[in-house]
Amino acid sequence: MQNKQFVLHSRPTGMPTDDNFKLNEIDITPLEDGQVLLRMLYISVDPYLRSRMNDRKSYIEPFAVGQPIISGGVAQVKESRSDAFKVGDNVTGMVPWQLYATLNARGLYKVDPAFAPITTALGVLGIPGLTAYFGFLDIGKPKAGETVVVSGAAGAVGTAVCQIARIQGCRVVGVAGSDEKNRYLQTELGVDAVVNYKSNELKQELLKACPNGVDIYFDNVGGEVSDHILTMMNHGSRTIICGQISMYNSEKMEPGVRAQPFLLVTSSLMQGFIITDYEKQFGRGVMQLATWLRENKLKYAEQIVDGFENTPQAFLGLFRGENLGKLLVHVADPE
Amino acid sequence: MQNKQFVLHSRPTGMPTDDNFKLNEIDITPLEDGQVLLRMLYISVDPYLRSRMNDRKSYIEPFAVGQPIISGGVAQVKESRSDAFKVGDNVTGMVPWQLYATLNARGLYKVDPAFAPITTALGVLGIPGLTAYFGFLDIGKPKAGETVVVSGAAGAVGTAVCQIARIQGCRVVGVAGSDEKNRYLQTELGVDAVVNYKSNELKQELLKACPNGVDIYFDNVGGEVSDHILTMMNHGSRTIICGQISMYNSEKMEPGVRAQPFLLVTSSLMQGFIITDYEKQFGRGVMQLATWLRENKLKYAEQIVDGFENTPQAFLGLFRGENLGKLLVHVADPE
Repeated sequence: MQNKQFVLHSRPTGMPTDDNFKLNEIDITPLEDGQVLLRMLYISVDPYLRSRMNDRKSYIEPFAVGQPIISGGVAQVKESRSDAFKVGDNVTGMVPWQLYATLNARGLYKVDPAFAPITTALGVLGIPGLTAYFGFLDIGKPKAGETVVVSGAAGAVGTAVCQIARIQGCRVVGVAGSDEKNRYLQTELGVDAVVNYKSNELKQELLKACPNGVDIYFDNVGGEVSDHILTMMNHGSRTIICGQISMYNSEKMEPGVRAQPFLLVTSSLMQGFIITDYEKQFGRGVMQLATWLRENKLKYAEQIVDGFENTPQAFLGLFRGENLGKLLVHVADPE
Repeated sequence: MQNKQFVLHSRPTGMPTDDNFKLNEIDITPLEDGQVLLRMLYISVDPYLRSRMNDRKSYIEPFAVGQPIISGGVAQVKESRSDAFKVGDNVTGMVPWQLYATLNARGLYKVDPAFAPITTALGVLGIPGLTAYFGFLDIGKPKAGETVVVSGAAGAVGTAVCQIARIQGCRVVGVAGSDEKNRYLQTELGVDAVVNYKSNELKQELLKACPNGVDIYFDNVGGEVSDHILTMMNHGSRTIICGQISMYNSEKMEPGVRAQPFLLVTSSLMQGFIITDYEKQFGRGVMQLATWLRENKLKYAEQIVDGFENTPQAFLGLFRGENLGKLLVHVADPE
């Protein structure tokens, strides 16, 4: 079997390019006890990976130059020296960008194709869905009738937040970067109002979409949208800082609007979080998300790029705002 | 009896001046049932009053032009048509800047000179002390050994926060605007390290004072100090936004460092608050503060400006950073 691997070839300056990645042909590492050999089926590309490409500690360690990029994946067990998995099992976990990978069984979770399509383990029933679920409910503490603004609303996390907010009886305003995405949010997901952040009248559009101010802001994007939302916060508002994709490729932090004076006059909260803080509650989260999925209260969109070789390009597409819902790379079909 | 009153004569642009206030001679309003006539003893001047001088709603309504400024005060009951108070009682509450004021007994609280000096009702046992107590403990949730940074550390709220943090076993770093203030913080209040925010090496001084990063930041000031602290926050840090005195006189919000990216990578919290949200727990707070005061764990400083006519000038001094501890105007002695 031929094995291939994408490594971080060089650290990007600003927007990453193809040149930051290198495709290597490598051998398959022989299995030790407790390990499984995985054949990759789907690889997840996610905005947060960008911060691991820098040479500074963020909430997780940076990738090492010359070492493989690691992200979420769904794979099939090809060989097993673990009691936890047998050949043919579908599993999910953090995987290197490789066709095949020899990994410890610890850290992998079984994916049942009868429960839901296996790709959902990387989307609505995986880290993006759980991020939406715990971030929005635990930090946002929504009450029916409140106005919720979601930036990056058409992304994997954003689409889930919009719908969970609707389920809680909130009025939901989605902010995304194209009219096509916004149409999807309104017609498919039932979002109450939408704003295209590329509008020349961004502030006016946001004000129009939120006549009663903003009670909860779920922020995936940061930057200018967030600057405006600060001026629209109601007393006791909650802002969940989930991502800041608009700034991941900035070499230098551009000055912007300070949040502190606005938090002061509205007695508002702003909270960053990382989903691993909720790890012990993942089971509960997945069960609730799966229930909503079955009840058709929760929908999801996927965009699937075909071919392992296209993984870096798929990743780069995230920063061009190309994806609607979860962006995945299809590597192979289950055998 | 001659009565006098300071009204808001005009709204300030930037830093307020004497011209924004006007001294009027007025009559004493006759008492109705349930009212008392107060003879003012001490008037409290506080930074937050500046925001009420603007013509825009902050967390409280703006003062009206031509109407008296209202702030905290301690007064003696001169006449009473209320069962709650008798002539000679000392009371505290929100009072107009007047020599005499006819007010409803509701909203006034008795002050017992045998319990503590009556001026403490405007400082360490009043709103500033309670602001420190509830803001720091309820939002900050301190743990022993954590590093706490307090800006505006030498003010009425800051001095209380520094000491409450020490009582909780925290390592306390005070940021104030003069070496004299910082000496007081270290020698009198036991603050572990101090930084003069006027230093040319502000960032370096802060880093030196916080070798293990910042777990809790109690922010009375905002602006540049807060910009630097953002870059020093530990995972799970808490920032309490209590005041932003550095910006109260700014006509235009200057751009600064956005908090969101820093909150994201450190899973940190930032929360604004207003002390009236804790009103129902004031009794508990005052009892605890008074206990610490008696145990000599909590000290306080006061600066007293003599003479009702000097009330506006005393207020303006707050923005020149002149006060160490609570700034009060002495109007008259109890009879």
